[in-house]
Amino acid sequence: MVELNFEKQGGLIPVVIQDFKTKEVLMMAYTDITAWKLTLKTGLVHFWSRSRKKIWKKGEESGYIQEVKEIRIDCDEDSILIKVRQVKGAACHKGYRSCFYRVLQNNKLKKDGEKIFEPKEIYKD
Amino acid sequence: MVELNFEKQGGLIPVVIQDFKTKEVLMMAYTDITAWKLTLKTGLVHFWSRSRKKIWKKGEESGYIQEVKEIRIDCDEDSILIKVRQVKGAACHKGYRSCFYRVLQNNKLKKDGEKIFEPKEIYKD
Repeated sequence: MVELNFEKQGGLIPVVIQDFKTKEVLMMAYTDITAWKLTLKTGLVHFWSRSRKKIWKKGEESGYIQEVKEIRIDCDEDSILIKVRQVKGAACHKGYRSCFYRVLQNNKLKKDGEKIFEPKEIYKD
Repeated sequence: MVELNFEKQGGLIPVVIQDFKTKEVLMMAYTDITAWKLTLKTGLVHFWSRSRKKIWKKGEESGYIQEVKEIRIDCDEDSILIKVRQVKGAACHKGYRSCFYRVLQNNKLKKDGEKIFEPKEIYKD
């Protein structure tokens, strides 16, 4: 298996998720070695959830899973770029296509992104 | 100033750098509060270098600076996406346009990116 530098950051590597068609950056999160192997094995993006302290199959609850289309590794082997097909069109738990749905303008955050679903209709607790 | 969650990761926030025209993801690195303020103030991307433990104006040695075109903040205020004009066309210290110049294929890394410069001609020591 290609060697990645998990040691640099305490066992975690940042992962940038990009839509393989539109090239929109959808989100970034972290993977550990287990989530990384699961991503490679299943072709579906898995992360390590720092808040829940567990492996997190992206979309496991919501159905908004991410199918791996291409994986790129950076020059230092300490970050990963995954191009995906975003199933059902939304990556953000707040219902937007991208987690980066707010743009900084005049020192304020302005919404500038497509809302795909209402979170309260998807997450039941 | 817009409040970002620097506490979550020991004072650092990951920053994804994307070419504002081609939408190619060029690199990712980290910012601290000082580098963040410098980025906002100067319109040029600054990071915190974890290896050198200092503020790092991107391109300060090589001239391959990054001009800020748009800044987006994610849903949790713990990661940043900056769309840039990459001056002189290369973001990677290995001479490539993007740090993600290698694609994972059949468990091997295959070069798939444009080389813009020869590092030994740019970095003198």
